[in-house]
Amino acid sequence: MMGNDRPVAVPQAPDPAPASNPSSALRAALSRAMVEIHRRGWCDGTGGNFSCVLDRQPLRLLMAPSGVHKGRVQPEQLIEVDATGSVIAGEGNASAETALHLAIVQACGAGAVLHTHSQAGTLLSQWALQGPGQSEGQLALRDLEMLKGLEGITTHATAAHIPVLANDQNLPRLADRARPLLPGAPQGLLIAGHGLYAWGRDLAAAERHLEILEFLLEQRWRQLLLQALAGKNAEPVWHP
Amino acid sequence: MMGNDRPVAVPQAPDPAPASNPSSALRAALSRAMVEIHRRGWCDGTGGNFSCVLDRQPLRLLMAPSGVHKGRVQPEQLIEVDATGSVIAGEGNASAETALHLAIVQACGAGAVLHTHSQAGTLLSQWALQGPGQSEGQLALRDLEMLKGLEGITTHATAAHIPVLANDQNLPRLADRARPLLPGAPQGLLIAGHGLYAWGRDLAAAERHLEILEFLLEQRWRQLLLQALAGKNAEPVWHP
Amino acid sequence: MMGNDRPVAVPQAPDPAPASNPSSALRAALSRAMVEIHRRGWCDGTGGNFSCVLDRQPLRLLMAPSGVHKGRVQPEQLIEVDATGSVIAGEGNASAETALHLAIVQACGAGAVLHTHSQAGTLLSQWALQGPGQSEGQLALRDLEMLKGLEGITTHATAAHIPVLANDQNLPRLADRARPLLPGAPQGLLIAGHGLYAWGRDLAAAERHLEILEFLLEQRWRQLLLQALAGKNAEPVWHP
Amino acid sequence: MMGNDRPVAVPQAPDPAPASNPSSALRAALSRAMVEIHRRGWCDGTGGNFSCVLDRQPLRLLMAPSGVHKGRVQPEQLIEVDATGSVIAGEGNASAETALHLAIVQACGAGAVLHTHSQAGTLLSQWALQGPGQSEGQLALRDLEMLKGLEGITTHATAAHIPVLANDQNLPRLADRARPLLPGAPQGLLIAGHGLYAWGRDLAAAERHLEILEFLLEQRWRQLLLQALAGKNAEPVWHP
Repeated sequence: MMGNDRPVAVPQAPDPAPASNPSSALRAALSRAMVEIHRRGWCDGTGGNFSCVLDRQPLRLLMAPSGVHKGRVQPEQLIEVDATGSVIAGEGNASAETALHLAIVQACGAGAVLHTHSQAGTLLSQWALQGPGQSEGQLALRDLEMLKGLEGITTHATAAHIPVLANDQNLPRLADRARPLLPGAPQGLLIAGHGLYAWGRDLAAAERHLEILEFLLEQRWRQLLLQALAGKNAEPVWHP
Repeated sequence: MMGNDRPVAVPQAPDPAPASNPSSALRAALSRAMVEIHRRGWCDGTGGNFSCVLDRQPLRLLMAPSGVHKGRVQPEQLIEVDATGSVIAGEGNASAETALHLAIVQACGAGAVLHTHSQAGTLLSQWALQGPGQSEGQLALRDLEMLKGLEGITTHATAAHIPVLANDQNLPRLADRARPLLPGAPQGLLIAGHGLYAWGRDLAAAERHLEILEFLLEQRWRQLLLQALAGKNAEPVWHP
Repeated sequence: MMGNDRPVAVPQAPDPAPASNPSSALRAALSRAMVEIHRRGWCDGTGGNFSCVLDRQPLRLLMAPSGVHKGRVQPEQLIEVDATGSVIAGEGNASAETALHLAIVQACGAGAVLHTHSQAGTLLSQWALQGPGQSEGQLALRDLEMLKGLEGITTHATAAHIPVLANDQNLPRLADRARPLLPGAPQGLLIAGHGLYAWGRDLAAAERHLEILEFLLEQRWRQLLLQALAGKNAEPVWHP
Repeated sequence: MMGNDRPVAVPQAPDPAPASNPSSALRAALSRAMVEIHRRGWCDGTGGNFSCVLDRQPLRLLMAPSGVHKGRVQPEQLIEVDATGSVIAGEGNASAETALHLAIVQACGAGAVLHTHSQAGTLLSQWALQGPGQSEGQLALRDLEMLKGLEGITTHATAAHIPVLANDQNLPRLADRARPLLPGAPQGLLIAGHGLYAWGRDLAAAERHLEILEFLLEQRWRQLLLQALAGKNAEPVWHP
């Protein structure tokens, strides 16, 4: 019998080993994921940040330190952060954006959070706000097979509405604004002119959701160009 | 004397070895092809699927399991599937899309089927349907030297018409709709808002057809932008 | 004292060694160049072809065989071809396009010829012909620093006019049409809807010219989009 | 306590070792940076140039020689140049553009200067001059989180104004025109139709600024396309 096409739990990235150093496999997997994300141009400069849950009771996150080139972080350079965002192991600072990582882990039960700065994510997040004064919006992605890569979606004939929040340098405040939107979000959240947060129950799921959402954002950009030029579709083209 | 430019059977990817493990070379070649296809952004998330014929009597396909990251599948993680789509060796599930792989193998005598989710393939397949209610369309690719890379085409002065079908989560039904179109298709079929199926008599031929068709789809996208902006061509620009 | 910025003969790619196997270094360099050209998406499928002069008296070219994937050709798989286009060493066929390689080697004194199928080269070559009935055109690239990478150009304040010929499956006839245009061409020639021929006195120079011309073609494509949208420049935007 | 997100001095690229050969680590780091910059298509042909400060008293720069492929320069092939632009160690010529590298090192206290030729940098630098007769302009990048990767910027709610100078083959004269603009420039300067100079206090900072500025230039290009097509923003879209 054939299976359905929903992603299944075939292990792709190693899970934390139960042995002497339980986090070493996860460190290697997160470091490798960051190299790949940088290769694709999704975390240029020192942009973006990336975390995995090491423990839930009490909460500990494995993260890249702030202000470093994310494509060159060795496994042993990753830091550990607690539920207050304080560094409890490793050298370097935790990003202010840790507040949002923690909010996502707590609100969605996520095991990993990947935050990227892509061209399409930056552009469309700003565009989706519809005006400089808007503090909230959403971006609809619809009718595409790739949507099925998002947890819980089983058909292309649907729409995912990614919430979009205006950017804010006060991260605790931004996290407070994000919290009520997170449980209903399709594994992703956009901050306007800033980028995407994608997550999943573990690192492999978060990587899958990231690739899917970045693909869909780039596709939305191309749709906008084509629909504007073609003037062919009857549906309201210029509203997200 | 100079040969013509039609692709010839110079072995590029190793054929199944006649030795003790006849499928090991093919496993390695398919795994490598998937790594490359992922590098190009044509199977993000867990999208796409890829198969090779191991035997025809009875029919056995070598495939990637469903729901895994296609850029990281090791040769030994590939599964074997029979003519009913059941897994007969290896761990994991067969994709529901196996039905379409089997239809292509049977209708076209293909030795390999590569199914991708590219930006241009997703966009233009949807655009080619001309409206939300259409169930079938086609996309014309014409007057380009690259067409000669497709089996049976010997001049640029021609057109390839790729059939386009509306997407359907009922894969046996989709395969039934595809079957009559396959023998006349130029080594490729598009599913709207979903992606491309490309095939060939063996893996090397399928890879060649995939690269050609993805190139032509991307080129079609650029043609649409340029023609719309330039308003220069007399030919009906906005109809595929 | 500072040198000017014209490219100088610092050896980048090894020249043929004078030792026992004079062509082995050149074989390795050509194979490596083809891998890189394929990585950039400039010879998808089995598209493109690539040659280096081994000897001039009598003329012998080292070439990729026709109909193979150009990103995977091992040094020892390259063939040798004489001045009539006949294969004199190695396995496989010479491309029909060998006629154009030979014309370029003879008319321009080139030591290497690289023929690519890029998105921008395919698109703009067709656009430059201005209409389906035209057999010849040109594409102007002007006022860019990158022009200085082309042999003989020492300032950005100039224009390079790349000749463009309508495509023809009769390669000897196409070579005849190209021959009078070659001596004045800026290290490159476009065949409409087909691609670019770039050349240089040796492989390193040909690689440099190829990268420069492909950069300039992609830039021209972006210029066309921006100028059309902006309507800002007084110069005739839509004529190459 | 959480740190802010400003880039910190976590060593990413090795600093010059204090040992027997103080410049060998820097040579390796600069060579590696150039490989990566070429991989991204920012120094095609023999375009671009790259330097690091070895000593300030007297001033010595480590540089790529002029006229070579920047993606293949081995650490030992880098040359050393003094404050007059003369080569004092190594083989090959210093680029005429050394004059601008020296001006940046002296005016900004930079420890590394990276000069690239990207598609977006070439295009938008020319566009920002607003007309063929203009000798100076600027390009505004605003309201994006990525701006925070530039030294001294701590919020997205700001604008960076990159100075743009008309191109000039007289490099000492171009350096003279650049000098007064450098102290106020946001770690970058554009030469019209030519490319970007990015710098930083050391190589890691210069690499970060380069990635940030190239990201922002590419983003500006996408903004222009989207705003022109959407006609949605009230702000003056077509003026940089």
